[in-house]
Amino acid sequence: MSILIEDVLLDGERKNIRVEGNRIASIDSKEGADTVIDGKGKAAIPGLINTHTHAAMSLFRGYADDMLLQDWLSSRILPLERNLKPEHIYWGTKLACLEMIKSGTTCFNDMYFFMEETAKAAEEMGIRAVLSEGFVDLLNPDVGKERFQSSISLVESIRSMKNDRIVPALGPHAIYTVSPESLQMVSEYAEKENLLVHFHLSETEDEVSACVELHGKRPVLFLEEIGFLNPNLVAAHSVWLNKEEIGLLKKHDVKISHNPVSNMKLAVGKAIPYTEMKEAGLLVSLGTDGCASNNALDMLETIKFAALYQKAYTGDPTVLPANEAVAMATENGARALGIDAGKIAPGKLADIVLIDLTAPQLHPGHNLVSDLAYAVNGSCVDTVICDGRILMQDRKVEGEDEILERANEAALDLVGKV
Amino acid sequence: MSILIEDVLLDGERKNIRVEGNRIASIDSKEGADTVIDGKGKAAIPGLINTHTHAAMSLFRGYADDMLLQDWLSSRILPLERNLKPEHIYWGTKLACLEMIKSGTTCFNDMYFFMEETAKAAEEMGIRAVLSEGFVDLLNPDVGKERFQSSISLVESIRSMKNDRIVPALGPHAIYTVSPESLQMVSEYAEKENLLVHFHLSETEDEVSACVELHGKRPVLFLEEIGFLNPNLVAAHSVWLNKEEIGLLKKHDVKISHNPVSNMKLAVGKAIPYTEMKEAGLLVSLGTDGCASNNALDMLETIKFAALYQKAYTGDPTVLPANEAVAMATENGARALGIDAGKIAPGKLADIVLIDLTAPQLHPGHNLVSDLAYAVNGSCVDTVICDGRILMQDRKVEGEDEILERANEAALDLVGKV
Repeated sequence: MSILIEDVLLDGERKNIRVEGNRIASIDSKEGADTVIDGKGKAAIPGLINTHTHAAMSLFRGYADDMLLQDWLSSRILPLERNLKPEHIYWGTKLACLEMIKSGTTCFNDMYFFMEETAKAAEEMGIRAVLSEGFVDLLNPDVGKERFQSSISLVESIRSMKNDRIVPALGPHAIYTVSPESLQMVSEYAEKENLLVHFHLSETEDEVSACVELHGKRPVLFLEEIGFLNPNLVAAHSVWLNKEEIGLLKKHDVKISHNPVSNMKLAVGKAIPYTEMKEAGLLVSLGTDGCASNNALDMLETIKFAALYQKAYTGDPTVLPANEAVAMATENGARALGIDAGKIAPGKLADIVLIDLTAPQLHPGHNLVSDLAYAVNGSCVDTVICDGRILMQDRKVEGEDEILERANEAALDLVGKV
Repeated sequence: MSILIEDVLLDGERKNIRVEGNRIASIDSKEGADTVIDGKGKAAIPGLINTHTHAAMSLFRGYADDMLLQDWLSSRILPLERNLKPEHIYWGTKLACLEMIKSGTTCFNDMYFFMEETAKAAEEMGIRAVLSEGFVDLLNPDVGKERFQSSISLVESIRSMKNDRIVPALGPHAIYTVSPESLQMVSEYAEKENLLVHFHLSETEDEVSACVELHGKRPVLFLEEIGFLNPNLVAAHSVWLNKEEIGLLKKHDVKISHNPVSNMKLAVGKAIPYTEMKEAGLLVSLGTDGCASNNALDMLETIKFAALYQKAYTGDPTVLPANEAVAMATENGARALGIDAGKIAPGKLADIVLIDLTAPQLHPGHNLVSDLAYAVNGSCVDTVICDGRILMQDRKVEGEDEILERANEAALDLVGKV
């Protein structure tokens, strides 16, 4: 199967992008193809990569806002989560995938429950996904040993799908919900099996204080001590870090997933220390977090929030310029997740998004990178190709109506049980 | 002329909204109408009101980002502005109106140059506008007297249009660009002629320090002293205020226009003191500012930024909840500009926006107000009615292609001359 995108704007020039199978074959193709897409009036950008979310939480969108983090979690989110069933996860993930595709995301890194359902939903929707079970032992290593079996089962189950698009990973939740013994167990298994580890790191100041109280040192120092810092670690949030911790994260090549919208909405107290991270050479990618704390999955919106929150927080409008913010959501996301995408170049995976240049926000069009960062949102995405397959064209995604209806039913069912 | 919007979601119930002429006649109509709109799958909300922008700066979108405010202004914006001609303003405003209509804005408060062109463009686009010339005397009252004639001419010229939708106002730029004598002159004329006064207040800390140095007191105290504080004053930004100043603004019933996106992008150093303003009973509305410092005119995006920036800045996720943020962009905007709109109720001006509920971000739909504040952006707007006239239906606006083309040409012409 081949696709030819004719006469599309790519890095300021008109190109013919040719896709063969699931890879980009050429960007100056003169050959025909099985499917030809007219790229006139469109720009091609790499598919956006969301490095931290909980897709099925789309069912919680708008259910609990404007609350203190602890209230929000204990009085609203946890009661719903206790009633989650596989079918909720399946339809919640389909709704999330629909929203992601419609806003140009071609790959997401997810940690949640009943992840076989997430895998099935993502496989059917055609999107790329890195999936881990949210692993929690409530600081009891014995519970950890038992529960870890289901994380391993998920890895095996995803591997048995034999679909390169759906990648298994491990998801130890956080330092305050997983015992050090279990963190070590996860880390060792990840190294042996060559798996990514998806983790929440230093989202709040309380989390840091609790760690200092319990272990006598800050989270990153403690995690280094137990051997948890590795190049395969994707650390979501990473807000409350000092310079020493940033240095350690770099030393072990840990990847950061920054979630500016969630951080602002839950008021975690500050913005990530981006300038220090950049100076240290840390890889910073972007995530939306789940819909309960965002409440959207629009990565183009997230790019704008990332850039503007840094400027506002530091008082320096030159920090995190447009090109760096866009790179976070493309190249850096791909590197964080070890996906051979994030750029449109021959040999790369064919994860391509076409932007409709007729949107007024893209005019007069002095600078496309600036417009992507500051002027548009996901609605300017016209076409999405993932792994060489067209998932959306003219903003139409297959099965949309059924997904909306079934996700609504799932949410009603869930809320009705609380 | 009458319009009937059948079976549309309004405040949680299915309603039939009937428009007669330029007013809402009924919300439970059983009569027919000249034009019937099927409201199924849609929700009706008041048209959004943007209380601070410089519409024609849409031509500058993406031309200068990520710069220090002073650099940005002196090396990029002012050189362009020196070359502005009436036709640039006309097409820049048309582009801005197109973007505003497509994102649900039905009324904007604008201050800029060649405002007869803005008036003409807004009149043709069918949108409601409050228009003032940006008045600057560089602290020389003699220059002020001379230049003020063109502000008066604009008022007369707009009045001669005899279009209630286009409202003249006065636009003294700021305390650092207009002499106290001229501010007094503007204020007296505004009172006599019953005009709104559109003003930039305390956007940056430097502005406050300079005022203290020059006049021995903070801006709001000085403005009260010279009699500039009045109920007809719309004070854009209003970031750097202390408690005493907030009290004085309330005492004189001054209206605030908060511009969170611009404040964050230009890194003005802090968020507005919203809680103190709310406690004092100040009216706070929302603006986008111009496209050179935002770079979009999407009020639904601005609502999200307003709510999240307050939470992030104060560290309190309960501050500025969804309903207050949405009210800022609707009711409060209408009250700030003295427009009898901002609510959907019999007798109000027929400025109505229909939201397409099939967008995935509006599912599962636990809470429409939350979804409007946090989940959607302007792209979920399907239909826009302003002053009883349909400006957009099915996201189509008349003359769209020509506007994009001519605005691009205008921008190229402008940049080419620098």
